[in-house]
Amino acid sequence: MKLTIERAALLKSLAHVQSVVERRNTIPILSNVLLAAGDGNLSLTATDMDLTIIEEVAAEVLQEGATTVPAHTLYDIVRKLPDGAQVELSLAGDSGQMTLTAGRSAFTLTTLPREDFPASNQVDLPQSFKVAAPELCSLVDRTRFAISTEETRYYLNGIYLHAAESGGVPVLRAVATDGHRLARFEMPLPEGAKGMPGVIVPRKTVGELRKLFDESDDSVAIALSDTRIRFSFGSTVLTSKLIDGTFPDYERVIPSGNDRTMEVDRKAFREAVDRVSTISSEKSRAVKLSFSEGLLTLSATSPENGSAIEEIEVAFKGETLEIGFNSRYLLDIAEQIEGSEALFQLSDATSPTIVRDVGDESALYVLMPMRV
Amino acid sequence: MKLTIERAALLKSLAHVQSVVERRNTIPILSNVLLAAGDGNLSLTATDMDLTIIEEVAAEVLQEGATTVPAHTLYDIVRKLPDGAQVELSLAGDSGQMTLTAGRSAFTLTTLPREDFPASNQVDLPQSFKVAAPELCSLVDRTRFAISTEETRYYLNGIYLHAAESGGVPVLRAVATDGHRLARFEMPLPEGAKGMPGVIVPRKTVGELRKLFDESDDSVAIALSDTRIRFSFGSTVLTSKLIDGTFPDYERVIPSGNDRTMEVDRKAFREAVDRVSTISSEKSRAVKLSFSEGLLTLSATSPENGSAIEEIEVAFKGETLEIGFNSRYLLDIAEQIEGSEALFQLSDATSPTIVRDVGDESALYVLMPMRV
Repeated sequence: MKLTIERAALLKSLAHVQSVVERRNTIPILSNVLLAAGDGNLSLTATDMDLTIIEEVAAEVLQEGATTVPAHTLYDIVRKLPDGAQVELSLAGDSGQMTLTAGRSAFTLTTLPREDFPASNQVDLPQSFKVAAPELCSLVDRTRFAISTEETRYYLNGIYLHAAESGGVPVLRAVATDGHRLARFEMPLPEGAKGMPGVIVPRKTVGELRKLFDESDDSVAIALSDTRIRFSFGSTVLTSKLIDGTFPDYERVIPSGNDRTMEVDRKAFREAVDRVSTISSEKSRAVKLSFSEGLLTLSATSPENGSAIEEIEVAFKGETLEIGFNSRYLLDIAEQIEGSEALFQLSDATSPTIVRDVGDESALYVLMPMRV
Repeated sequence: MKLTIERAALLKSLAHVQSVVERRNTIPILSNVLLAAGDGNLSLTATDMDLTIIEEVAAEVLQEGATTVPAHTLYDIVRKLPDGAQVELSLAGDSGQMTLTAGRSAFTLTTLPREDFPASNQVDLPQSFKVAAPELCSLVDRTRFAISTEETRYYLNGIYLHAAESGGVPVLRAVATDGHRLARFEMPLPEGAKGMPGVIVPRKTVGELRKLFDESDDSVAIALSDTRIRFSFGSTVLTSKLIDGTFPDYERVIPSGNDRTMEVDRKAFREAVDRVSTISSEKSRAVKLSFSEGLLTLSATSPENGSAIEEIEVAFKGETLEIGFNSRYLLDIAEQIEGSEALFQLSDATSPTIVRDVGDESALYVLMPMRV
């Protein structure tokens, strides 16, 4: 193997693939990135056995071949090389070492044979469709904050992606919940997604996918079976195992008869919750919301700190109500609302509350109240 | 006590004083800031018993008085208030609570009586002199990185400030060392500092002092005895206990006969060390420097990672030499050099090396080599 490549191009691809590699690995080969030089391009592969990323980048290949080297070390070296450097990678005969040279720097890296690298077996992914990158971003961004971190509830450790109907229109839906709050986002069902199985995409996969995306505006090809999902875009392919579990029947917890409504300026609401929660105890983070005509009063008390009270003018319809929430959850949802106004639909102090973006039906949030 | 004050002014002073307050305190009053409203101003005091800060800020005082409230909570509240808000603080009779109101926000904070707040007893500080703020900044910045973090060597846990002579000229010197490297900075001895005792200013005091300074360009009045030091500037007074110990005779470790010299571009050197050290093992961080005429070769090897080698053109005078250093320490010193060129003065592979800024005699660094 022997090739030269521009530092910036190599760095960008390495940044993507090294991110999948875990910092601590009991199996040494999983710390490595597989480099394969083919006809005019270099392919980089990294995996943690559940999640695999393959990226191709153009390179001047003098001799084809492949090897594996420590991913984080290679990334650190390339990161520290001067901008504009030409990098030469070559496998020095049978020494089992790869040399990297750039200007007056030369590195020798220990390798492991490419044969030891886990094969990414080509499984059959029968269902395939395309999603525009910005929509996939929204789908992830509007829901991932609600993913559970409780490892015992492994079936909640991801985003539940499935086909559904909304007002008679077929939609692609993403749902995440940790039992205290739920986030649901939907978009028109892409062509080819009809009849797709409901799948749970793991938290790490969602995170890696989102990192790759800040840069891209292309459309993303998604292919899946009931055990695996693959995202392809540009010269990158991300393949992940799915969570093998049953997502709970979330529709049951989305109330339909909430008849009290409040519209509030999102920014004013977020700031008021943030201020008042300064007083909440570290543990409960509880904030009380008191609704009356035209007025929302937020308050918090704690034996150690004292108390806080703040008023905001709102459009409230319905009977007066007092209800408590975890301020952290209120802030998370306020961050998600993209428009200037948030809509609350409330029932009573012990029932789930719905929060929506006024003028955007695509996202819906459900929040369980807490006793205050 | 009753007063109104502009949010920005209160926030700036609170930011300064709350920084001294430790996050965890076994003595509750030490979590509090003492607020004292006097004639047209509010004074804020915080202490950890070793270090005390007092800051005064103009306020519209309607009723004089004083109390203490949790410093971090008060700071968080004021920080979250909208820009431009007018803040009213008032002590509500005998309730033992302070109310803070701003716009439609109202907070009630638990207080502790001002009498419980540790008195900042006015001790006699016989020695006093003035230092320009930028010089005091340099004095701290050029030396603090070398302060030891080993608590057992408490006498190294600060900057040793003392009067000395340099080439027959009286100077004020700051020295810090952790036994592996030493940093020395000197400036002309200010008027009034002659005969001052050598004092060790604790790490935390140095850090707080430096934080206050980014904003100020005034001169700083320093007053000290052999147990205490006080820094006064603008409307802020910082008083600290000194470390009760004997700083080692550092002059003995600064070699005088180092006859090999190297001048190197600081930036190129820092980047080369950074790259090569990628290969060093996490533990030793060792980098080998090989000097020969016109050339510096940096190298590192580790059984896990492989090896690295890099060349830089330098101006080297003397016999060829190989010497090892902790790359972390080389990088720290390279960060300190302000000019474009660094000067190394070397003896042999086991003796301390001197590093200086070419064209600036005020700072000097000593670095112990390591076996490679």
